[in-house]
Amino acid sequence: MEIETRIRESFDRQSMMKTLGARLVAVAPGAVEIDAAITPDLSQQHGFAHAALAFAIGDSAAGYSALTVMPEDREVVTSEMKIHLLAPARGDRLIARGRVVKPGRRLVIVTADVFAVEGGVETHAALLTGTMVPV
Amino acid sequence: MEIETRIRESFDRQSMMKTLGARLVAVAPGAVEIDAAITPDLSQQHGFAHAALAFAIGDSAAGYSALTVMPEDREVVTSEMKIHLLAPARGDRLIARGRVVKPGRRLVIVTADVFAVEGGVETHAALLTGTMVPV
Amino acid sequence: MEIETRIRESFDRQSMMKTLGARLVAVAPGAVEIDAAITPDLSQQHGFAHAALAFAIGDSAAGYSALTVMPEDREVVTSEMKIHLLAPARGDRLIARGRVVKPGRRLVIVTADVFAVEGGVETHAALLTGTMVPV
Amino acid sequence: MEIETRIRESFDRQSMMKTLGARLVAVAPGAVEIDAAITPDLSQQHGFAHAALAFAIGDSAAGYSALTVMPEDREVVTSEMKIHLLAPARGDRLIARGRVVKPGRRLVIVTADVFAVEGGVETHAALLTGTMVPV
Repeated sequence: MEIETRIRESFDRQSMMKTLGARLVAVAPGAVEIDAAITPDLSQQHGFAHAALAFAIGDSAAGYSALTVMPEDREVVTSEMKIHLLAPARGDRLIARGRVVKPGRRLVIVTADVFAVEGGVETHAALLTGTMVPV
Repeated sequence: MEIETRIRESFDRQSMMKTLGARLVAVAPGAVEIDAAITPDLSQQHGFAHAALAFAIGDSAAGYSALTVMPEDREVVTSEMKIHLLAPARGDRLIARGRVVKPGRRLVIVTADVFAVEGGVETHAALLTGTMVPV
Repeated sequence: MEIETRIRESFDRQSMMKTLGARLVAVAPGAVEIDAAITPDLSQQHGFAHAALAFAIGDSAAGYSALTVMPEDREVVTSEMKIHLLAPARGDRLIARGRVVKPGRRLVIVTADVFAVEGGVETHAALLTGTMVPV
Repeated sequence: MEIETRIRESFDRQSMMKTLGARLVAVAPGAVEIDAAITPDLSQQHGFAHAALAFAIGDSAAGYSALTVMPEDREVVTSEMKIHLLAPARGDRLIARGRVVKPGRRLVIVTADVFAVEGGVETHAALLTGTMVPV
């Protein structure tokens, strides 16, 4: 099966992505983009997008970028992920760009940058690095 | 204002907590508990609770534990947070127990353990460590 | 071979441990202690023990605690490790206490606490969490 | 005082850097390079450079890159640092390239890449991300 189709099917099974309004934007070998609108239902106590939204789409973009470099019958799960919140996530939407740092048979090291988009201008809102394991 | 009241008001302003069905369970000096039911809307591709749910309640429990040791006029935001996913998050609900590792005027180091509860039995599902900053 | 003997032989092959003056203090199933004297050769720019010393003995204590739960023919290597520096590492010596958080066939999640010891009083100087993989 | 001079003076006060044979290679605004020869005294149990060497020079390169963006009377200390070990550190020397991800008055988010150099060929050996705080 073509890699984008496999990833789209996996993405569609993640009901959390639907609950958060996240969309699979782009899939390339070793690189995946996911975005989500910043809505009033997804805020923290100061009205900005909640860190959990940046985490959710950053982690998924990173994980799916790992999946693009795995054999066809595998899925991946997050073993660990660190997120740095760099700036308040305000604006119209968040976009996460995940990529593979180091592929491997047993572990894939990944990273993702999350940007807050306001009026077409991107601000670097979060940086994630983590470890994906095939299952 | 009493600390539990302050934290409850802050928690209630986090619309993400409501979207995820999270509840503030307990507040003590340096320690806060938050739980959330594992529902079909919050799953990853294998049907378990999404990592973002464990992150969301773990991060909030850790953050509010930091707030209990801050002066009254402050809020805290997450600067960075690492999560280890230790076991599939299956069962009835997740409960996150946050606590302060090291208080400080400029930084508070925090940790949280997240347990999946199934039929009254708790499984250690996630471990978080991170840095909170007062704002 | 008895586990303590295996770990001591592996420890003795790590020339870095000798260069840093580190000693294997205690080995128990899932828990290992390593210490090192704080000497003028191991300082950072303010005269305290360098973060790399806390990292070195914390990482090794955590890694060897993972080795205690592995089959006999394996070694482990660090995949990733996060260290929080909690207090200036001043005093006579540092002691690192590593332990296993979650054993596993492919990954072992570990943690270590590092204490600075001055006149018999221990101060919590560093907290590490990380991932060990068998090789 | 010129920034490279300030950093060189601070570097020279870190006796650990001398013990590990580390050298300050290059200083630019927001970016610092440090290298160290891979010698028999700095190995782990398989004969490669110890993770603590990659940590030591990566952490210092990242920290000094933060110092280049601080006011003149400040120093920085590491609050937390995560290191991913990507490949065995074998060869002639390690070189760490640190840079600032996000400057700030109270926190500076930094990263470093560490490469193992063998016969002029660089292999990506480690990736660090962390938080520096001015003191």
